[in-house]
Amino acid sequence: MASETIELRGHIIDSLILPKVLDQILTRGANFKISEIKIGQRRADQSFARIEVSAETREELDELILRLRQHGAEVIEKAEVQLARAPADGVFPNDFYVTTNQQTFIRLKGKEIEVQPVMIDSAVAVDQRKRTARAVKFFDVGQGDEIVVGHQGIRVVPVQRATSHTDAFQFINTSVAADQPKSAVIREIARELERVRSAGGKTVAVVGPAIVLTGAGEHLQRLIEQGFINRLFAGGAFAVYDIERALFGTSLGKSPDHLLAGGGHENHMWAINVLRASGGIAAAVDKKILTSGVMHACVGHGVDIVLTGSIRDEGPIPGVTTDIVEAQKIMRDKLADASLVLLMGTVLHSLAVANMLAPTIKTVCVDIDPSAVARIIHHQPFQSIGVVTDVEPFLRQLTDSLVDSDGGVPKRRQEKK
Amino acid sequence: MASETIELRGHIIDSLILPKVLDQILTRGANFKISEIKIGQRRADQSFARIEVSAETREELDELILRLRQHGAEVIEKAEVQLARAPADGVFPNDFYVTTNQQTFIRLKGKEIEVQPVMIDSAVAVDQRKRTARAVKFFDVGQGDEIVVGHQGIRVVPVQRATSHTDAFQFINTSVAADQPKSAVIREIARELERVRSAGGKTVAVVGPAIVLTGAGEHLQRLIEQGFINRLFAGGAFAVYDIERALFGTSLGKSPDHLLAGGGHENHMWAINVLRASGGIAAAVDKKILTSGVMHACVGHGVDIVLTGSIRDEGPIPGVTTDIVEAQKIMRDKLADASLVLLMGTVLHSLAVANMLAPTIKTVCVDIDPSAVARIIHHQPFQSIGVVTDVEPFLRQLTDSLVDSDGGVPKRRQEKK
Amino acid sequence: MASETIELRGHIIDSLILPKVLDQILTRGANFKISEIKIGQRRADQSFARIEVSAETREELDELILRLRQHGAEVIEKAEVQLARAPADGVFPNDFYVTTNQQTFIRLKGKEIEVQPVMIDSAVAVDQRKRTARAVKFFDVGQGDEIVVGHQGIRVVPVQRATSHTDAFQFINTSVAADQPKSAVIREIARELERVRSAGGKTVAVVGPAIVLTGAGEHLQRLIEQGFINRLFAGGAFAVYDIERALFGTSLGKSPDHLLAGGGHENHMWAINVLRASGGIAAAVDKKILTSGVMHACVGHGVDIVLTGSIRDEGPIPGVTTDIVEAQKIMRDKLADASLVLLMGTVLHSLAVANMLAPTIKTVCVDIDPSAVARIIHHQPFQSIGVVTDVEPFLRQLTDSLVDSDGGVPKRRQEKK
Amino acid sequence: MASETIELRGHIIDSLILPKVLDQILTRGANFKISEIKIGQRRADQSFARIEVSAETREELDELILRLRQHGAEVIEKAEVQLARAPADGVFPNDFYVTTNQQTFIRLKGKEIEVQPVMIDSAVAVDQRKRTARAVKFFDVGQGDEIVVGHQGIRVVPVQRATSHTDAFQFINTSVAADQPKSAVIREIARELERVRSAGGKTVAVVGPAIVLTGAGEHLQRLIEQGFINRLFAGGAFAVYDIERALFGTSLGKSPDHLLAGGGHENHMWAINVLRASGGIAAAVDKKILTSGVMHACVGHGVDIVLTGSIRDEGPIPGVTTDIVEAQKIMRDKLADASLVLLMGTVLHSLAVANMLAPTIKTVCVDIDPSAVARIIHHQPFQSIGVVTDVEPFLRQLTDSLVDSDGGVPKRRQEKK
Repeated sequence: MASETIELRGHIIDSLILPKVLDQILTRGANFKISEIKIGQRRADQSFARIEVSAETREELDELILRLRQHGAEVIEKAEVQLARAPADGVFPNDFYVTTNQQTFIRLKGKEIEVQPVMIDSAVAVDQRKRTARAVKFFDVGQGDEIVVGHQGIRVVPVQRATSHTDAFQFINTSVAADQPKSAVIREIARELERVRSAGGKTVAVVGPAIVLTGAGEHLQRLIEQGFINRLFAGGAFAVYDIERALFGTSLGKSPDHLLAGGGHENHMWAINVLRASGGIAAAVDKKILTSGVMHACVGHGVDIVLTGSIRDEGPIPGVTTDIVEAQKIMRDKLADASLVLLMGTVLHSLAVANMLAPTIKTVCVDIDPSAVARIIHHQPFQSIGVVTDVEPFLRQLTDSLVDSDGGVPKRRQEKK
Repeated sequence: MASETIELRGHIIDSLILPKVLDQILTRGANFKISEIKIGQRRADQSFARIEVSAETREELDELILRLRQHGAEVIEKAEVQLARAPADGVFPNDFYVTTNQQTFIRLKGKEIEVQPVMIDSAVAVDQRKRTARAVKFFDVGQGDEIVVGHQGIRVVPVQRATSHTDAFQFINTSVAADQPKSAVIREIARELERVRSAGGKTVAVVGPAIVLTGAGEHLQRLIEQGFINRLFAGGAFAVYDIERALFGTSLGKSPDHLLAGGGHENHMWAINVLRASGGIAAAVDKKILTSGVMHACVGHGVDIVLTGSIRDEGPIPGVTTDIVEAQKIMRDKLADASLVLLMGTVLHSLAVANMLAPTIKTVCVDIDPSAVARIIHHQPFQSIGVVTDVEPFLRQLTDSLVDSDGGVPKRRQEKK
Repeated sequence: MASETIELRGHIIDSLILPKVLDQILTRGANFKISEIKIGQRRADQSFARIEVSAETREELDELILRLRQHGAEVIEKAEVQLARAPADGVFPNDFYVTTNQQTFIRLKGKEIEVQPVMIDSAVAVDQRKRTARAVKFFDVGQGDEIVVGHQGIRVVPVQRATSHTDAFQFINTSVAADQPKSAVIREIARELERVRSAGGKTVAVVGPAIVLTGAGEHLQRLIEQGFINRLFAGGAFAVYDIERALFGTSLGKSPDHLLAGGGHENHMWAINVLRASGGIAAAVDKKILTSGVMHACVGHGVDIVLTGSIRDEGPIPGVTTDIVEAQKIMRDKLADASLVLLMGTVLHSLAVANMLAPTIKTVCVDIDPSAVARIIHHQPFQSIGVVTDVEPFLRQLTDSLVDSDGGVPKRRQEKK
Repeated sequence: MASETIELRGHIIDSLILPKVLDQILTRGANFKISEIKIGQRRADQSFARIEVSAETREELDELILRLRQHGAEVIEKAEVQLARAPADGVFPNDFYVTTNQQTFIRLKGKEIEVQPVMIDSAVAVDQRKRTARAVKFFDVGQGDEIVVGHQGIRVVPVQRATSHTDAFQFINTSVAADQPKSAVIREIARELERVRSAGGKTVAVVGPAIVLTGAGEHLQRLIEQGFINRLFAGGAFAVYDIERALFGTSLGKSPDHLLAGGGHENHMWAINVLRASGGIAAAVDKKILTSGVMHACVGHGVDIVLTGSIRDEGPIPGVTTDIVEAQKIMRDKLADASLVLLMGTVLHSLAVANMLAPTIKTVCVDIDPSAVARIIHHQPFQSIGVVTDVEPFLRQLTDSLVDSDGGVPKRRQEKK
């Protein structure tokens, strides 16, 4: 029988930290004794618990303690972090510590150092001279770098529920199902978009082809024109569908305006060819070849476009990053200072982006597949809203909520005159 | 080796009759020889084919011929229909002929008699004296009634594609996927609703709880107020959700207006209690207890309400038919003269109703589950449109398309003033 | 500002009671102060918390307190329960208390009385003379009966996580996704079936048509033959599919043995006719008309069969309860002493049954639709396992796990010789 | 009013060519007159039709004729193909002809030349001197190359249904739904695997993570060991999951053997690290670091491994092609001589591969999502089977069907001794 003592601090009950810790202990057949507990009396007060955890074997205990640390448990004897040198470029030492998506500290020579940036599934490289700790990916490690191994001397601080107020992002379970009303939550999201724009924050839209295919491109375009979107992440196909629609009136041969539109795959392939001939999206806008659509709006309103390739893509069009390791670096970089991320109509890109987010970035996920929504928002408790719906009406209603509040006559109705 | 000669008549190529017949023959490993074929030269012209079908055994051939008859093949020797007497009330003779959902004729004493009504999965009762043939369900047969057995002397005439024009209902594959644009098809459906209302036809709405839960009740209500809906089929739960919303502002404790509405199940149960206390929906409207919502609109605008029970129901509320055999009879009766059926947000009721429809009734099916839509519209080729989407935005856009065309200012916006 | 003091007792942290209570308070924008808290030190120890809850208005507080009571909170001033008389047969007084699926007590003349049975969405009828409290449905109340109203004097005791051991049913989140391994959890379920059989408990199988259609009927049959199933709930269609297969080798014209089986709907309708002619399932077994299949096994091994009608049914066959209120009574009655319930391949029946279960009944739900599984097991935390998979391989593997452990050579392989 | 005459040849009715042509004409509101038709009398006989097609405008007619050509229609005046020069490297001339996935011929100087290879969504580059026509992708075209434009002088020959026999691949609608029996179709697939192996053909398995995650890796491994698989396409993640399981007993921290396995993401990251340290999969096998699992079996049995990157990937591990344009080239190359392709548990890769297949390659698609299966097999009529099911039991049953027929005692049971 092995045992160890852990401590928990913060809003450990209403942010579910203590329950999750006890759940892990019970689920794994271990035992606990709470040797001290102090529960904050009021909403804003912090709580504290000291728990003695015991398991059958040292291995089981170690495994368990590692999980508990990831939920924010600190092991009380203030051990030093353990380091080992990377054996080769691009290779970590065995038993390297794998980061979570939570704020993390290491204890080095008796002092705590924060690991930066917060990046899941990384190793931690330590510079003992500069006293810094960096989360690093494989490509980022060089032979001889000092890397954290084991799990001593590491403290994780999970995101906790806000104590000052309650908003739609702060529910434990924030997925709005297909058969639930969505108007109220869409209005909340509109308010958040406005807050971020006012505060000069960055909103990143991660978008899938369904947006263009269903005719929702015009709504997204309005969001861009009104300055609500700062960065746009998409697969190359999204850009081609959008430009096909701008050039030929169809996307994959379908049109929201005509029941029967022509052009199976020709329009799609021709759109790619036009972009290759003109030198890319910005060039096509410059040359007045591309005069409408989402990509055109991005170029005109200074939205940062990140396009990544997929093995299903034709082309590619100029500007698409076809190497996925390169694409990941660009995306991670452009997400570092984001305030709000909208994941809409793309499971692949949404899962990829969700894995790159710091835990404090507010996230909205919209998809028609309930399982996909659940998987995507899973990592951002207290910071995410999932909406199971068709993306076209979602964006329509979101845009209407925004323009209505934007002062004066809503834009879409104005345009109709 | 057994063989038989069949004949096909009508638009046998573009309505897929000849291809389906050949597909059946090939799929079952049989052989064919086309002894005569005359293809209509122009769109409106009829075609004709005489095909000799052969199979290894007589049993295989009989089985195959039965299938081919259901696709419209006639066996050319003009055999008499075979009859046998029902052995007991509610029991058919062995080997009774099971009807399809297509127009059917039997040959009795050298003359053809049409089976009426067109009703799938029934037997055919023949009155030799009156020279009539009725499609009958089990409950409708009495001991000694003469029932068609085997499959001789039976001719099926499948619905064929219209030759005079093309509309959205006439495509072979009419399901609009989640990631396809829906505006154009919704406008087509709006036009059909208007045509049916102008022509004095009957439109039946078959509706599920998602309509009320997502806040789409107000759109349906407008359809009713403008006279587009003549009959409403629903489960008892739909009515309770709608009335709960009218009385307490919630449905199952959720509200489209407030992110956090109170009332888990109490409001639901209390709404049932109010209806039981007041004596039913119409009585509650009379007594001014119920003053808004879909059911209120139905009572006020003379819409025929058919409510059926489910084993998931609480209550029941007065007016719900809890016996399902009884409920089927009522539904079948109310569908007999329908022109257009809207199946929205309910798989159970939609499948039940789809099975009761004559093949010429136009059908629209709306659901968020693509597999459900495919199954529901499967029986109505050339007469049905499936739309895979959230039902709330569908009904919103449908209603907007209608009111916009209704002359003058759209109603919803007017009301906002 | 209104406030009230509540108390929580039991395994309030690891059974998630305290976190859920705080979540409700925060989510609804209310405030709390924990005036006393005592956390059990060891796994088996009980905990206790006294919390002062405050909200803006009395109405908000009342609404909130009602929710908190449903999570097990007690309001500390020991108020008497409030009663009012039913105004008519089948009608409760306004503001009647709606039960949860948790153990409930009322305080009458200073003493607590347990409400029996535990039945969700019911009212509580009190007999002051006999000092009993019954959960009653609408049909069960007579004019003048005394019914609990408001929410004073009511105490709910939620099911808590077992302290003595950990098993597969006790996880907080027990749904096994489609892309997760299932062997281990299926073995656990096999063990539970064996435990229940050994202990003389009752296992209820609630089954949908997919079981017969996919060819899993033979596995279910083996479960029945080995005495693992005591009651079988199904729709009428399940029985017909099974009997169609026994009589004609097909179910809905499909066969697991032949790629191309004959018989569209004829076999289905003919099977119904055979049952109507023979007088029902048991009679057909007696007369040696029905000699194999699931229903045959049920008759031979004394399994209690409960068949309910659906508006999609043909027939009905004798023995189907076509009135759904009547069917609910029968099901509720047959579930009262169940130990284990298997919900397999039927969303409608599973949701209906899940709503009838006492919170301590162990539940397994198997379906290919992840959203359906999540909804069905939602009410039975710490007592349910959801498995997202095809029902045929699930039952195959479950049965193999059982027979292997049944002593000696597995049955299926034996039979092959 | 414009008109043109087309001709159809082959099994134009049972392979649905004539019906599809008429459907296109009617759907687009055009008219037709069949000036000559000759229907093959027997199964093996060819048919012929000459049809005069007319539309309102020349543009509509051209658009329509383009579609009809893609369904195999020939425009009868034997026009020469039109050519234009590529304006730059990687750019086609405007209006370039976009290929289908069907056999295609062009008419050059009065003679027909076959376009090779059959490759969808490509242009056709013509070498007038060598008299060759190549399907080319963007990367493959150089400035000045002669490219087919417009749609004159092009003849498409759609795949037609086999006339010599009928097998499971030849049905028009070959998707087996979740609630249908699968044993018979799995046996057919087993037979096809055996046929291909005997004939020395190449079988390509395209596999997703679900195979490893659900514990189906051991079945796939057996297929490989018995020589049924020649090439394996997967994302990098598949390989990592498989190797994680081989090294640590888990995949993404889950194990099919233990209900509760340890190791959230650490094992996954550590597996990547091991592979990077050892220099790749083959090196890890050589060094005896990797001694079991699917990838190990591939190395041991000479299976060609193609791993492609995804923006969701960690790592990458050595051997993964991270540039998607490069990956497409490799995949296309390795598919050129395939006889049978198994697409299992991966929508992204399956859609990508389905788009690269010649129309004569037999295809099996297995996934739990019915919509995904429908989309994937859509391009391979008469050559594909879709199975909606959990991939683990599918592979288990497939492997059992094979080993049983492999002579002697089934392997799996043998191993158990």
